[in-house]
Amino acid sequence: MAHGGKAKRLAEMRCEPCRTDSPAVAGQAQEALLTELEGWQVEVVDDVPRLNRTYQTANFAAALSLADRIGEMADLEDHHPQLVVEWGRLQVSWWTHAIGGLHMNDFVLAARCDELAAGTAPV
Amino acid sequence: MAHGGKAKRLAEMRCEPCRTDSPAVAGQAQEALLTELEGWQVEVVDDVPRLNRTYQTANFAAALSLADRIGEMADLEDHHPQLVVEWGRLQVSWWTHAIGGLHMNDFVLAARCDELAAGTAPV
Repeated sequence: MAHGGKAKRLAEMRCEPCRTDSPAVAGQAQEALLTELEGWQVEVVDDVPRLNRTYQTANFAAALSLADRIGEMADLEDHHPQLVVEWGRLQVSWWTHAIGGLHMNDFVLAARCDELAAGTAPV
Repeated sequence: MAHGGKAKRLAEMRCEPCRTDSPAVAGQAQEALLTELEGWQVEVVDDVPRLNRTYQTANFAAALSLADRIGEMADLEDHHPQLVVEWGRLQVSWWTHAIGGLHMNDFVLAARCDELAAGTAPV
């Protein structure tokens, strides 16, 4: 999987403490960040935007293994995604409950997922 | 979590090889099996019935740990669920792609999930 320099820099950013008055990432800022995150899309579920990507994997165990690696990283950052594990694929969704939308942290951890998933095939 | 004797017997059944002409479990047979599986519900997604249950867990890592245990069992049986991992909950969905519906195997492995999840709180 190709990683641009911008995506790498995004992955290296630190998560910030998030409060209910933290700024949501929307509009042009969101569009700019999405250009750095190949394969990620914003989808609205129950009126809340989520940052989603699906990784194809060799089988069920590989999808679960990637979920484990992402979960370990998420626990370290104390910010957790939704992970949908199926045979041969893992869907990752990031959003920030506290603000009912997308925080910069979601984009940072999305970029980290791409690093953890390096070698798996994007859908 | 309470397990009735019927649910225990269900969990002890063996999975059968599944073909496209294998019988779907529907109607009264499905209703009878559901009475043995407390907390499980049939929900139709994209015209295909799925056997669903959500387990509450202490945190994200506990949900992922339960997903790992279910995934290991699923690999042994070569029949795989969809697992949705979130902070504090795991949703398990069983259905059989080959028949576009519910096979007896789905009910057997649902009962096995309850054994693996013993000690977690049902939703």
